[in-house]
Amino acid sequence: MIDPDRFLRDLHKLRSFGASGVGKGVIRPAFSDADIAARKWLWEQFKNAGLEPHFDPTGNLFGLAEGPSVLLGSHSDSQPEGGWLDGALGVIAALEIARASDGGVSVVSFQDEEGRFGGLTGSAIWSGQQTLEQTDLFVDRQGVSFAQARAVLTDQMRDFVDPGRFTGFIEMHIEQGLTLDHSGQKIGVVSEIVGMRDLTITFQGQQNHAGTTQMHLRRDAFQALSAFNALLNERFAEVVTATTVWTIGHVKVSPNAASIVPGQVTFSVQWRDGSSSRLAQMEQIVRQAVADTADAYKMQVSIGAMVGLEPVAMNADIRQSLEASADKVVPDHWQTMPSGALHDATNVSHILPVAMLFVPSIGGISHDFAEDTAEQDLITGLKVLAGAVGVAN
Amino acid sequence: MIDPDRFLRDLHKLRSFGASGVGKGVIRPAFSDADIAARKWLWEQFKNAGLEPHFDPTGNLFGLAEGPSVLLGSHSDSQPEGGWLDGALGVIAALEIARASDGGVSVVSFQDEEGRFGGLTGSAIWSGQQTLEQTDLFVDRQGVSFAQARAVLTDQMRDFVDPGRFTGFIEMHIEQGLTLDHSGQKIGVVSEIVGMRDLTITFQGQQNHAGTTQMHLRRDAFQALSAFNALLNERFAEVVTATTVWTIGHVKVSPNAASIVPGQVTFSVQWRDGSSSRLAQMEQIVRQAVADTADAYKMQVSIGAMVGLEPVAMNADIRQSLEASADKVVPDHWQTMPSGALHDATNVSHILPVAMLFVPSIGGISHDFAEDTAEQDLITGLKVLAGAVGVAN
Repeated sequence: MIDPDRFLRDLHKLRSFGASGVGKGVIRPAFSDADIAARKWLWEQFKNAGLEPHFDPTGNLFGLAEGPSVLLGSHSDSQPEGGWLDGALGVIAALEIARASDGGVSVVSFQDEEGRFGGLTGSAIWSGQQTLEQTDLFVDRQGVSFAQARAVLTDQMRDFVDPGRFTGFIEMHIEQGLTLDHSGQKIGVVSEIVGMRDLTITFQGQQNHAGTTQMHLRRDAFQALSAFNALLNERFAEVVTATTVWTIGHVKVSPNAASIVPGQVTFSVQWRDGSSSRLAQMEQIVRQAVADTADAYKMQVSIGAMVGLEPVAMNADIRQSLEASADKVVPDHWQTMPSGALHDATNVSHILPVAMLFVPSIGGISHDFAEDTAEQDLITGLKVLAGAVGVAN
Repeated sequence: MIDPDRFLRDLHKLRSFGASGVGKGVIRPAFSDADIAARKWLWEQFKNAGLEPHFDPTGNLFGLAEGPSVLLGSHSDSQPEGGWLDGALGVIAALEIARASDGGVSVVSFQDEEGRFGGLTGSAIWSGQQTLEQTDLFVDRQGVSFAQARAVLTDQMRDFVDPGRFTGFIEMHIEQGLTLDHSGQKIGVVSEIVGMRDLTITFQGQQNHAGTTQMHLRRDAFQALSAFNALLNERFAEVVTATTVWTIGHVKVSPNAASIVPGQVTFSVQWRDGSSSRLAQMEQIVRQAVADTADAYKMQVSIGAMVGLEPVAMNADIRQSLEASADKVVPDHWQTMPSGALHDATNVSHILPVAMLFVPSIGGISHDFAEDTAEQDLITGLKVLAGAVGVAN
């Protein structure tokens, strides 16, 4: 039987490793002293729970049940300035459920989900998305390589874990958005992790004196961007769903002076959706809107290479277990929803059936000392996850 | 009788001081070695023309005719990377006309029009717009003060020239815009130097994750800017004339990352027009459009202090002389037009009747090594200016 108080105590204990900043803030990036201390503490907890603790060469920490098992977990590293929950919630919930089970539940804390060395690093290597050898060359912002960073655990590291021993992977995480906070629902069962497309676009017009250049003779790159944005919003409206999102988040105007008509603007357009075909349809709209704007505003255009990630559908069977469990624990207070953010489950989907569930984020705040979730909602998440894997709650 | 060949020879000779870069480029900022050498050469030319050479305490160089006279000229300093004409044209044309006259024509080359120490420095001090004492504290980008820079001419400097000895001031300059180049006209008689208003505006929304934040829950500061821009263009269209201009030239998006919904944007809005009342009307439109956008997009707003310059009307009598002369030299090939850029004449208008005329800028290019004007057009300008002050052409 799961013990919500013990679960919350462990969650607060994990927070003590790297506790910093205001509120419940945490500074625990991958392979920092706080992260290593937290992993060693988790190692002990896994052992005490009757699991076999196991570091793989990336620093991923598993707690392995004997025989076939379902894998639960997330990651325990944090952003340079992060909150106390984020991935830690999924790891400690997994620990509590494994402890309360009669076996058949393994636990994982993936390493460097937050991207000191690129992002989702531990799960990417384990799932074969990138090699240990190439990753060893990646350096953080201080010039420290992944090889140097992981050397601190060399003594404890063993081989990679065979994914064949797991029947599937379920990751619980805070939502990191406003959907549940606004809807008032307590659980989000994830339908898919959305795919993403990202383009960097440059409009090149003509830099001119802002006093001496008449309006009809201008080729103002900022005006082109503004018109492109309006056109894109108008055309996207015809194809998107309520959960599709798109963003112009990066804008660089040149020469960027009040008295000079902008000669050039470079900007990002990023869009996310659960459907590959809709992502492709939106790409066509972006490229057509760029071309139409360039014609109308006499711009030269350059478009960078497409950065893309395909959507990841959740496994139907596991998802159904989560829905059935949510329906018991909080009837009428759960919903299905896509995940707009990437998670370790994205990588793990290449080697195992995966599913995810979310608990609400207060104010949608994430990657910030101010990140938080009501403790009752954390317990609800624990219960739903336990129920989904057949552990009494 | 003016001598166009001698005028062009002197113009090319002046270019030799600081000749740099590609084409006819010049590097001759105020008080640089090249500028001092050019001023000493001009000193000799003024003397040879029968004028009394006179440096004032700012480095303004006058060539004074005996008795009452009309003052012609402009400035001979350049941008850090400038063209060969810009203000030099007006100085050498003035020299040629004084030389060809029977007296009654004085010449000036103002100092630091291009702003090593702020902009229009010499004419601002002479006309009482700023004091020598305060200006002495201004420093350039290398930390050199105006006091230090002007010390190089201390031996030559005499007192300020009494403006009462001049009947008016006429400045010839390249247009620095595309108006004449596109209309095919050869001379622009300036109707007024336009006034300017400049506001710095900040929209503060909510920074969010670009994947997890649904569109209807966003407070995206870039979207607010784009909508504001469209609204402003629409509302300005109802009040502007063909010569009104406005520009959003500076844009700073925060945090400016492709995966983050912009939480803040700071931008400039600058507008210029020959009418004070239209400038004021446009300010009301800007402020209302900011307020309406803030309401629609749930933005907090801050607006910086207004930077403003009033329009300067040209003296009707002198302007009429210029028009009559243009009509003789290039009938049907001149036009009246506002000056969208500031000039020394803006400052001089506080102490003397002023007027201006423009010659075409090829491609509108200015403040660039590539700046140029057809030599025939330079001669046309010389002739029109000479005719306007009663010197045979």
